[in-house]
Amino acid sequence: MQSAPAIQKLLDELERLPGVGPKSAQRIAYYILNSDSADALRLAQAIQEVKSTVHFCQRCFNYAEDDLCAICASPSRDGGLLCVVGEPRDIPPLERTGVFSGVYHVLGGELSPMGGVGPADLTIAPLMSRLASEDVREVVLATNPNIEGETTAAYLARLIKPLGITVTRLASGLPVGGDLEFADEVTLGRALEARRPL
Amino acid sequence: MQSAPAIQKLLDELERLPGVGPKSAQRIAYYILNSDSADALRLAQAIQEVKSTVHFCQRCFNYAEDDLCAICASPSRDGGLLCVVGEPRDIPPLERTGVFSGVYHVLGGELSPMGGVGPADLTIAPLMSRLASEDVREVVLATNPNIEGETTAAYLARLIKPLGITVTRLASGLPVGGDLEFADEVTLGRALEARRPL
Repeated sequence: MQSAPAIQKLLDELERLPGVGPKSAQRIAYYILNSDSADALRLAQAIQEVKSTVHFCQRCFNYAEDDLCAICASPSRDGGLLCVVGEPRDIPPLERTGVFSGVYHVLGGELSPMGGVGPADLTIAPLMSRLASEDVREVVLATNPNIEGETTAAYLARLIKPLGITVTRLASGLPVGGDLEFADEVTLGRALEARRPL
Repeated sequence: MQSAPAIQKLLDELERLPGVGPKSAQRIAYYILNSDSADALRLAQAIQEVKSTVHFCQRCFNYAEDDLCAICASPSRDGGLLCVVGEPRDIPPLERTGVFSGVYHVLGGELSPMGGVGPADLTIAPLMSRLASEDVREVVLATNPNIEGETTAAYLARLIKPLGITVTRLASGLPVGGDLEFADEVTLGRALEARRPL
């Protein structure tokens, strides 16, 4: 109410960000007000730059600054191994594992009959033409382990298996470092079903 | 590592904000990437605008867009009642109480011998000239209830009392709606000392 209009406008914009409530917005706004102009403007410029230079990779629909994203453009990635994810934000956690050497395909969402998301809303057609033109031997379905993700994985498996390509799914089980005591029944049930000989 | 440089730059800038760690920075960055260009650019513009239009009120050192802040410029505020705070961010919570009808003075920090903040680093000289030229009957010392804030309040009280102006301090005690069980000893001790007849 007593805030200067420019501060109020900044507070309003900050509160639209995910995970930022009125208190964090105020903390961030006062931090920006307090900081060097150069520091604050670097944030503004980073936002503008990301919106002007980043678009979708023509091949996998990950975020990219050139025609191809850094992963698709890399000669060291295994093009025969293709990991399908829902959103670009699912790629960094998979990359951080250091375990995956293949390439990705970003669906742009997951099937959700309730949410009105059908196969035509996702990049399933481009995925199928990639599978027809590229030499892919295995598709890893890394959609989320929830209803939408499982539905999407089942749908894609039905489409891809007839092409003679191996289709796999990320394993479900106990989180490493987690406590058995705090695991939910469904996760624990999956972990039991998928038990491995030692 | 595999992020586009523009995304990495945005992540770096977001992580500098208070309360924003790597995970929230990633969440916010993907939100910005996903959102309409217009929405994202409004945030960038709000940051630029706040840095270009907001400066310190000439009278009380609160943030202001004009020479005077909205509170100093308001004819309905009681200029005889002056509340001294450490930072501009301390004013909104006091305003939200709806209890205070006076004006403010922002010190720009609190005395901290350990942190190298002395009286000359704060707006104490301008405060003293306000008290000499304005008709102030009471100064409310609303610095933080911690070592620096108490030190600052004690220092100011010693300077101001000889002028014949009433000097008061915000009450310490139990937070309203809080649980006695969870109150720390110091707060509970203060609440006992300051007990009131009912």
